Amino acid sequence: MPQYNPPLRDMQFVIHELFHTTDELKSIPRHADVDADTINQVLEEGGKFAAEVTFPLNRIGDEQGCTLDPATHEVTTPKGFKEAYAKYVEGGWPALSCDPEYGGQGLPFVLNQCLYEMLNSANQAWTMYPGLSHGAYEALHAHGTGEQKKLFLPKLVSGEWTGTMCLTEPHCGTDLGLLRTKAEPQADGTYRITGNKIFISAGEHDMAENIVHLVLARLPDAPQGSKGISLFLVPKFLVQPDGSLGARNGVYCGGLEHKMGIHGNATAQLVLDGAVGTLVGEPNKGLPAMFVMMNAARLGVGNQSLGLTEVAYQNALAYAKERIQMRALSGPKAKDKPADPIIVHPDVRKMLLTAKAYAEGGRALAIYCTLLLDKELYHPDEKVRQEAAEMVALLTPIVKAFLTDNGHIATNACLQVFGGHGFIEEWGMSQFVRDNRINMIYEGTNTVQSLDLLGRKVLANNGATLKKFGKLVAQLVEEEGVNEKMAEFINPVAYLGDQMTKFTTEIGFKAFQNPEEVGGAAVDYLRVLGHLVFGYFWARMAQVALREIDAGNTDPFYRAKLQTARFYFARLFPETAALMRTARSGVANLLDTDEALA
Amino acid sequence: MPQYNPPLRDMQFVIHELFHTTDELKSIPRHADVDADTINQVLEEGGKFAAEVTFPLNRIGDEQGCTLDPATHEVTTPKGFKEAYAKYVEGGWPALSCDPEYGGQGLPFVLNQCLYEMLNSANQAWTMYPGLSHGAYEALHAHGTGEQKKLFLPKLVSGEWTGTMCLTEPHCGTDLGLLRTKAEPQADGTYRITGNKIFISAGEHDMAENIVHLVLARLPDAPQGSKGISLFLVPKFLVQPDGSLGARNGVYCGGLEHKMGIHGNATAQLVLDGAVGTLVGEPNKGLPAMFVMMNAARLGVGNQSLGLTEVAYQNALAYAKERIQMRALSGPKAKDKPADPIIVHPDVRKMLLTAKAYAEGGRALAIYCTLLLDKELYHPDEKVRQEAAEMVALLTPIVKAFLTDNGHIATNACLQVFGGHGFIEEWGMSQFVRDNRINMIYEGTNTVQSLDLLGRKVLANNGATLKKFGKLVAQLVEEEGVNEKMAEFINPVAYLGDQMTKFTTEIGFKAFQNPEEVGGAAVDYLRVLGHLVFGYFWARMAQVALREIDAGNTDPFYRAKLQTARFYFARLFPETAALMRTARSGVANLLDTDEALA
Repeated sequence: MPQYNPPLRDMQFVIHELFHTTDELKSIPRHADVDADTINQVLEEGGKFAAEVTFPLNRIGDEQGCTLDPATHEVTTPKGFKEAYAKYVEGGWPALSCDPEYGGQGLPFVLNQCLYEMLNSANQAWTMYPGLSHGAYEALHAHGTGEQKKLFLPKLVSGEWTGTMCLTEPHCGTDLGLLRTKAEPQADGTYRITGNKIFISAGEHDMAENIVHLVLARLPDAPQGSKGISLFLVPKFLVQPDGSLGARNGVYCGGLEHKMGIHGNATAQLVLDGAVGTLVGEPNKGLPAMFVMMNAARLGVGNQSLGLTEVAYQNALAYAKERIQMRALSGPKAKDKPADPIIVHPDVRKMLLTAKAYAEGGRALAIYCTLLLDKELYHPDEKVRQEAAEMVALLTPIVKAFLTDNGHIATNACLQVFGGHGFIEEWGMSQFVRDNRINMIYEGTNTVQSLDLLGRKVLANNGATLKKFGKLVAQLVEEEGVNEKMAEFINPVAYLGDQMTKFTTEIGFKAFQNPEEVGGAAVDYLRVLGHLVFGYFWARMAQVALREIDAGNTDPFYRAKLQTARFYFARLFPETAALMRTARSGVANLLDTDEALA
Repeated sequence: MPQYNPPLRDMQFVIHELFHTTDELKSIPRHADVDADTINQVLEEGGKFAAEVTFPLNRIGDEQGCTLDPATHEVTTPKGFKEAYAKYVEGGWPALSCDPEYGGQGLPFVLNQCLYEMLNSANQAWTMYPGLSHGAYEALHAHGTGEQKKLFLPKLVSGEWTGTMCLTEPHCGTDLGLLRTKAEPQADGTYRITGNKIFISAGEHDMAENIVHLVLARLPDAPQGSKGISLFLVPKFLVQPDGSLGARNGVYCGGLEHKMGIHGNATAQLVLDGAVGTLVGEPNKGLPAMFVMMNAARLGVGNQSLGLTEVAYQNALAYAKERIQMRALSGPKAKDKPADPIIVHPDVRKMLLTAKAYAEGGRALAIYCTLLLDKELYHPDEKVRQEAAEMVALLTPIVKAFLTDNGHIATNACLQVFGGHGFIEEWGMSQFVRDNRINMIYEGTNTVQSLDLLGRKVLANNGATLKKFGKLVAQLVEEEGVNEKMAEFINPVAYLGDQMTKFTTEIGFKAFQNPEEVGGAAVDYLRVLGHLVFGYFWARMAQVALREIDAGNTDPFYRAKLQTARFYFARLFPETAALMRTARSGVANLLDTDEALA
């Protein structure tokens, strides 16, 4: 019953009109020839794949889930998942932004970003199978040996094999320093890996002939804690030097989790029983190597919620136009009907616009980040690469935590639009809420993201990167500060931008005296900075829209953009006022509570 | 795996120390002899029932759900539900606050409130079976004929039969004026009722020998809209004049909904196929008669979320003390362990204290309301009855919407404390979130509650009742205004109390010019007033705690209360700053969005 239409027009607006992507890409030699037609065509085809192939499987995936045969340890994915994956491979989609040296198409990340937004809207659980593979590709591409790359990358790029990241164990999630899985060196240079991993997404399935597990484990002489962790490549089937599949390796699915959402993805308990693995990167340097994968994964998780926000919005909007119930407070609007469509009610509109503003703001931020990623990796100028990397580092926890919290707010608001029907699974709204719920948790909980942002990305470098973002804001304010039509968008951003420095300094000063203060302020701080970032992009989107309207463009798209910007600043942005107050309240009201929490 | 301990100490604090309930009850003749021992004993026994009988069935109910046999139209409830209900009846619990004339124990509502909070913590889905029955009892007690009361009330009071409320149809939920179910008068004074009802909680089951449906339907000559709706009593089995069961009536379960939560409750589609019914109350006055039931149900729904907030808190607290992960930012706390328990982290404490503050604030408000209900119904002085009724009317939408929204925030925060394990069904946190989600929707969505509050309960009487609540606040401020120790609790309440009048007048003035303004401000308004009410009760609880501490009482309960009050004012109450701003932003940013919502 749910529906999905790829938001191509808005993606094109952000890519072409807001960020002038093809111009930006000209400075990166390997992407200099990417033109607007190529971008639009890839988006259109990707959208078609999402809407026609994986979206129809979303409800089925939720209803059926995955099943484990305890005798064979094999997992069966929901009906149709395997066939959809075969089509995905056949269409060459896994290769989109991969290195041509290993069979990739070498297109910019920004396209992968948009493809994945649509795939996530269509079916988050299904999308995690290729999504995890892409993460494994990136980690191996960055840290694998020549032999590992030669044997494994072409298969991950083609999608014939998939990948996983195996970090979590029953007693450790956030705190990987506690992990116990062991790796014993063998005479032939390989390792025998033994231990138990849990929560391994796409950890076992029937969609590909081999699965490439990237596993964190400890060498016998490893130091304790997080500095004694190494990364290993552990394939489900061993791979012969000629690339053909060999014996079944000692890594088995011991159970599947019963989860609140993403039922279509196999969240596996993996038993490693002397499994053969090879070292990836340096001994005891497993965490930094895995972080290549995790940073990409964090942006990917924000993108999951962006996708769910968009699809929940589309369905709630359609329902609000069709469902008739009560009359408008100012009198009947649909006089020919026994009641008005519920979209006439202000609060229904508020719920819809909340989702819309978070979807479009999130899309602008996410695309901005991937454009930076393209620069970070392939720009010829080291300084540009370095600055792009710093900005990505600052924005990554915001994409992860702000977009997933917004997804929680938005999908719940959209469910609410459906009234009682929102609670009934067939309508699909519950699934969007349930699927989104894990996004606030995995790849580092949103609290962990906020500590990363405030502690490492802001305070540890004395706000240097934050100041660079502040310059972007100041530049926009300077450009538009005298434009009366822009005042309603510029003023709040300018005001918060000014406050942000003082706010950050205050917290930094308190944290200098007591490091716990960071923990007391970080979550609210991230949300405030998230709004500053969204506010900046919303003001820039309003700027583009106003210029078009002023130039006589009558496309209603631009009026829609202005209205949504206006709503955003009037109804969502003001929560910063409360958040700054609570962030400033100090950590004592949390820590001096031993009796309350006895 | 989840756990539950009835919060008897806090209930006793609210009942005895905060509200001096037995003193209050002395003014109501029928409750004048209720003493503290009776109250405490009922709470203890009720808590035992909840913790030992229905709580162990909560996960089973979620996993199994209800099943319908399409051949017989009979519904089987989850394993153990029927036996637990038999014990409930055997224990005399359904009769607790019912009229002694029909076999009730005639105890004050405040006891029923606390019993139901505990039952809801233990198992919301199960509790809805007796809960709906109690609502049917109240509607029949208020509006039934002598014959109906004689035949049906004793069986509802004993719990041998259960009841339902049948309002919703596929095309109407909020807008009951659209309902189509027909009632044809018969020569014998009965009616034949035909139509389709949906979302009927406890609509069919195997727990009682008969089900008493209270059904809204239209008489043939009824006016259109909500003024042409009548209420009928339609039993599953017809009842002979001697009270024995007769023929099966023409009301059948046509299907069960697949829902996000409350799986253990049978949410039935009911087909009425010329079912025999009798009129309850006056023709075409069905809605007001049903509202007796709905007002009670709205308080009951708030109580469901209160129960879930409490049980989610208890489980998250236990987990946070046991789970070790990472070190405190200021250095190790549990040096003998490889990591610190996560309760050392400020944000984990914030999530826990959020749930605790909302649970304890909600408990105070809910108990206050039921004490007013006891006065409204049985106080000898009409003026007291009237004033109690007005205050209950004002507070009911707050109990319903504020407590259920807080339940959403709190259960999600508690799930988050569990990290990835929160997403795994076996831990039970997901169920609390999912069960709570319907509470924001049914018995009038929270948007409908906010319109009821701002439009009818505040603006329609020129804020008269609100002013009475304001007097309570002013009285407290006067009492404690010079007490320095109380300043941190009194100042925010005093400040918001002052603002509230201006804020309300402003919105009222705008609404006078454009009624849509009510719809643009109502949801935020309700949350602001909710915090004023919570702030008032938190300040009073702090007052009691401070007095005990100053008098030398070393029971850590009072220090805990003060710490939680401090947290509430520092971290939760300040959201009013943002809410007032958005409420004041005006309805144009919602209504002038036709292109955005095209």
